[in-house]
Amino acid sequence: MTPPRPFNFSAGPATLPEPVLRQVAAEMLDWQGSGMSVMEMSHRGKEFISIYERAEADLRELLAVPSNFRILFMQGGGLGENAIVPLNLSRGGKVDVVVTGSWSRKSAAEARRYADVQIAADIGSGRSIPQGWQLREDAAYVHVCTNETIDGVEFHELPRLEHGVPLVIDCSSHLLSRPIDWSRVGLAFGGAQKNVGPAGLTLVFVRDDLLGHALDICPSAFNYETVAKAQSMYNTPPTFAIYVAGLVFQWIKTLEYAGKRGLAAVEQRNIDKAALLYSALDASSLYENRVDPSCRSRMNVPFFLRNEKLNDAFLTEAKAAGLLQLKGHKSVGGMRASIYNAMPPEGVQALVAFLKDFETRHG
Amino acid sequence: MTPPRPFNFSAGPATLPEPVLRQVAAEMLDWQGSGMSVMEMSHRGKEFISIYERAEADLRELLAVPSNFRILFMQGGGLGENAIVPLNLSRGGKVDVVVTGSWSRKSAAEARRYADVQIAADIGSGRSIPQGWQLREDAAYVHVCTNETIDGVEFHELPRLEHGVPLVIDCSSHLLSRPIDWSRVGLAFGGAQKNVGPAGLTLVFVRDDLLGHALDICPSAFNYETVAKAQSMYNTPPTFAIYVAGLVFQWIKTLEYAGKRGLAAVEQRNIDKAALLYSALDASSLYENRVDPSCRSRMNVPFFLRNEKLNDAFLTEAKAAGLLQLKGHKSVGGMRASIYNAMPPEGVQALVAFLKDFETRHG
Repeated sequence: MTPPRPFNFSAGPATLPEPVLRQVAAEMLDWQGSGMSVMEMSHRGKEFISIYERAEADLRELLAVPSNFRILFMQGGGLGENAIVPLNLSRGGKVDVVVTGSWSRKSAAEARRYADVQIAADIGSGRSIPQGWQLREDAAYVHVCTNETIDGVEFHELPRLEHGVPLVIDCSSHLLSRPIDWSRVGLAFGGAQKNVGPAGLTLVFVRDDLLGHALDICPSAFNYETVAKAQSMYNTPPTFAIYVAGLVFQWIKTLEYAGKRGLAAVEQRNIDKAALLYSALDASSLYENRVDPSCRSRMNVPFFLRNEKLNDAFLTEAKAAGLLQLKGHKSVGGMRASIYNAMPPEGVQALVAFLKDFETRHG
Repeated sequence: MTPPRPFNFSAGPATLPEPVLRQVAAEMLDWQGSGMSVMEMSHRGKEFISIYERAEADLRELLAVPSNFRILFMQGGGLGENAIVPLNLSRGGKVDVVVTGSWSRKSAAEARRYADVQIAADIGSGRSIPQGWQLREDAAYVHVCTNETIDGVEFHELPRLEHGVPLVIDCSSHLLSRPIDWSRVGLAFGGAQKNVGPAGLTLVFVRDDLLGHALDICPSAFNYETVAKAQSMYNTPPTFAIYVAGLVFQWIKTLEYAGKRGLAAVEQRNIDKAALLYSALDASSLYENRVDPSCRSRMNVPFFLRNEKLNDAFLTEAKAAGLLQLKGHKSVGGMRASIYNAMPPEGVQALVAFLKDFETRHG
């Protein structure tokens, strides 16, 4: 009997569903009688093509991606996309960015290499998503980070833009945690290493009409049209990461929770996990989360100990209790619990129990 | 008792050492008592940092990389580097490319987005690396593909350039198969999916003095100086691929063959494997390899059946004999046996035995 694994609250790369890891281990030397590990397969062979096509189809089904959107399996992560998006979509024109935290701020800075960037709104040191965006009618697109991994700020609803300006969403850290309203989106991108699979895979969902406008200086390997035409095989894709992601998609499809199944089950589970954790933090006199409840992230819950001298003891005791990687991002300090899809409710329950116990002993 | 695995001659992603795959499988749910899969580790945590540092140190030792070279773990593959190299090194000036096959031809085309590119020499339909290169003294660099994966053409010795012009080598498909003479190289790059590990990891070796000259339009995630300063963690690196690569480095370090050890053993094994296979092809009246012996690749051996009607029977019977993925690249047809580091001598012996048997029965 294997002892239970500890609960891993890393912000990414992050915990994966245990059944997925078990299947990956079991198939490592011989994928389904092929005599090869998935890592050893030509990306153009029928074995890998079948893995790729199933992953793409399952992802499209899970997120109800419309047929006028292409799904691209790319490399370079969110920071890569900060350049790749304007290289493909800006046409050298205007880009408006809504800053709600560290990631959207980085996106704005990088886009300045290629476009006339305006900050349409800025959360600054505020606690909630700013209102009254200054948007330009002739912008090539508006960029929003729909879940700020470091700051714990999430859009619970996507904005509806006017004038036909496409909305670009960086949804790296909450992709596949809930449905996406595609009627409001022109392009969505996300690194895989939160809810999807291993680091090194980037998912891009792009509406057909936004293809074909890349700047001449856009590298071919990062030209969405080139990648789309080649079914993500212009260059060798990160095959093993796509395989693991495909297993995660299958895991989501069969997940059941509260009478729901698939993505609806995942979403409800995430809502309940987050509610449990925020309630515990709000009820405490030791811990605090500083984000307005209107935009608290269901995925990344940063919190602080009001007595910062207890930080080291908190982390040491948490680890001893089987609760790993709770240290906050270096730029903000404190703690952060990332509770992605693969974090079971039992993990959040264990964290909440630990929070109360630690407060009782040290508060 | 597990039956022996078939021999996999894929050009990449390609066969990996079986002990590496076994270790990856064994550590999948719990890396060395950490309670985490390597896929689940924060790239900034001490566990992954230890994996990364060991991989970097082992690679530096194996290839005797001088201290004035930085090793970068990047994403985007060889086709990505076709843009990333000129974005970083061309300074918008002149780039000379020696074309010896499909890959260097692609590199030249992509560099034209950023630089004044001249073909210094072109193999055309020839069988050997052309002589009499037309090089410009004021070129920012000269690009050479030191092993053409599709065409099976390898530089057995690196060119020595004049006038201090840096040599850039695309060594994707023979990286780590033999030593590199760093005194002749300014930058070397290679995708991992041949001799190193899973697809999705790109290795770049760059001399210090070539850092810091990127064009303004170079994406930050692909700016060598930015990546070097961040120890390859400007964006989340492909952590799992780095881990597997690290295990491959450890496997090479302990490999013994013909009284040699480590990279010297790997090189000798590759020399002997290639000699055995080319001898068999040359002695046959059914098969032919069309590359001049002066530059035949030790890694990728394309060959043709003089009676092309036998192609399908050849592939079917080879697969039945446990010899996988021998079909040639679609652009040239015929067959190709890729015999990278991880292909044991027994695999080449089995292929040679099959070649003879097939010829006897069908020749």
